[in-house]
Order: sequence, then C-alpha cells, then structure tokens
Amino acid sequence: MSNKIITIGREFGSGGRELGRLIAEKLNYAYYDREIISEIAKRTSLSEKYVQHIAEHKPVIPFPIHTGRTFWAVIPDYGQEVQKEQHDIIREMASKSDCVIVGRGADYILRELKPFRLFVYSDIESKIQRCRENGSNDYENGESMTEKELRRRIEQINKGRADYYEFYTGQKWGEKSNYDLCINTANITDIAKLSEAVTKIC
Amino acid sequence: MSNKIITIGREFGSGGRELGRLIAEKLNYAYYDREIISEIAKRTSLSEKYVQHIAEHKPVIPFPIHTGRTFWAVIPDYGQEVQKEQHDIIREMASKSDCVIVGRGADYILRELKPFRLFVYSDIESKIQRCRENGSNDYENGESMTEKELRRRIEQINKGRADYYEFYTGQKWGEKSNYDLCINTANITDIAKLSEAVTKIC
Repeated sequence: MSNKIITIGREFGSGGRELGRLIAEKLNYAYYDREIISEIAKRTSLSEKYVQHIAEHKPVIPFPIHTGRTFWAVIPDYGQEVQKEQHDIIREMASKSDCVIVGRGADYILRELKPFRLFVYSDIESKIQRCRENGSNDYENGESMTEKELRRRIEQINKGRADYYEFYTGQKWGEKSNYDLCINTANITDIAKLSEAVTKIC
Repeated sequence: MSNKIITIGREFGSGGRELGRLIAEKLNYAYYDREIISEIAKRTSLSEKYVQHIAEHKPVIPFPIHTGRTFWAVIPDYGQEVQKEQHDIIREMASKSDCVIVGRGADYILRELKPFRLFVYSDIESKIQRCRENGSNDYENGESMTEKELRRRIEQINKGRADYYEFYTGQKWGEKSNYDLCINTANITDIAKLSEAVTKIC
C-alpha cells in the first residue's frame, strides 16, 4: 500500500500552516514545510533565504536582448536547480512515510500518487487579524506595519504564491476543482477542533 | 441565541443533497429541500412542477417591444411571486429551528444570520457515475440516456443553477469566497463518514 499524503495549499494569513501541523500531529504523519527549503539549501549550498526567494517566485523572464549567447551563459540559473531539487525532495518525502506537505505545489508534483489536496483560505480582514496575532513567525514586522502596509504585504505574498503555482503547474492556484477540500478559516476560531474534523475526511 | 443554520449549495450529481440530509439527521436539525417548492406551490396555488421550473431558472428578460404597457400587463408575473414566497419561506424556516437548507440561494437570502455555508462539487465523470447509480430520484431517465446525453443534461442543470444564483444574488455560484467549506466528492465514497466529519466543523 502506498503512503497517505496530504498536501496543503494555503493563502498567507489563513492559518493553513497551523492547520497542517495539527493534522500531521493528530494523524502521526511526518510534516514538511520549511524543512523543504532547508534541505534544498543543504543540497545546493545556497543560503536558505535565497532558496526561499527562488522557491516562491516564478522566474523573471528576461527581455530578449540580441547580444549573442554569451550574455545568457554568465547568468547562473539557480532557479532551475532549485526547482529540480524541490521536485526530488518532495518525491522522496512522499515515498518515505505518510506525510503532510505544505505549499510548494506538492499537490501537482505528486498528482500521480493521488494525495488528499487541501486548500485553506480566508478573507483579507481575518488574514490581517491573524498576522497581527501570530507574531513574527509568519510575517515580517507585522506589528509595526500600518494596516495598509500589512494588507499590501499579505496581498503581495499571495500574488507571489499564485504566480509561482500557476507558472509551474499551469493550473489556477486556489481553483476548487484542483482540491478535495477548501476551507475558509475566516469564521473559524478553533483550528484544533477543525484539524480534528479534517482528519476524519482525509 | 439564534438558530444554527447550514446552507448547502451543490452541483447537480455531486451528492450534496444526500450529504445535507445526513448532516441534518446527525445533528437533529430540520431539513429543507423540496419542501420549499411544495410550500410555495401551496401558497401560490401553482403546480409544484411549474414552481420548480420558476424557482430554478432566472427569468427570461423579454426583448423590449414598444407596443405600449398593455402588452406586458397581460403576462402574469409568477416569477416575482414565487421569488417572494421562496424568500419568505426560507426566512420562516430559519427562524423556526436549527436547520439545513439545500439550494435556493439560501446562503445569500440568510446572509445576515451568518449561516454555515457549504458548497458541494465534483468532476463531471463522478457526477455521471453518481447519476447512473442513484436511480430516478435525482434525474430524469438517467439510465436510459446515453453518456453524451446525460453529460449534457448534468451540465445544463448546473448551468441553470449558476445562472439562477448569479441573477438573484449578484455573486458567482460556487466561488469559494462565498462559502465556509467546499467539498469535492469526486474521490469520496463514504458520504456518511464525510457527513459525520462535517458536523464537527459546522
């Protein structure tokens, strides 16, 4: 029997990561989130911060300047390397044991293994509130940002995730037909209780 | 304390009605589905079949012919009457007791009461399969239809539901931001188990 795999796509600020962690805990599954970035950094000898940036942004397609091939050859293409490592690592994780994998387009990368695909979302107001409450783990300097700045930052991060996902999968991020369960956390206060219920559906 | 209300939007063929019935059963809530149509028929003295047709199709806006007002006055406007009754009946049901209401844009009609809004969907193949299995309760002569006919019929009914919902609510039918939980039943075989889990989230 193949391993049970749960993938979690999530809008930044929706509590998707917390939900994923709790689901993994309750089911006693391995949990992979930032571990993927650390592992890529280790294998490529790039910094975690740089890997994170590459792994969350679609490549900027340079405007084609016709100055010969040499020009392109001197730009190191870490994007492709990071993508390949990410792909390999996610497949390795999925083959090792039952697991929950957060983000990184794992739902698409592992599609042949038929993972249970969750998407977690909420409205912008509850995302802002969640960011304010959660402290600095999930966002940068959220508390010292104005409401407007924080809103813009959240929207920017989610735009980045959508672009990234769509670039690498050809699918629309958050489009419900690509998921088995879509959870709006806007009116949910008890994520632990929610995670308990979700384990009965996965 | 106000009543607990669960509304269920559902694609035809996705098993949403069955899920709603089971949720109501488990929570011991009132369950309203076709009861709404029967009640409208009773109050308006129209036939159930006719009410059902009106209550599930957006009105056809007639091409404006400039022949004076008399022409329009002779066309009985049952659409508006049915809409008004439907609106009133759904509000009455919601005020009576905890309940599950299937379809009819109840999520929108009752939005001020903050219902828990479910949307149930699946891919076309599993809808076709479900229709074949479910017998004649949920579709007309499904078993004697060819695959192509059944597929077209399902798409037609869902197009009707989308148009109707969008006409009366100004919202996009099935757009996840309008719901608290969206469930894809394509890979779910045990609707009873699913309903049990959903009762823990509502």
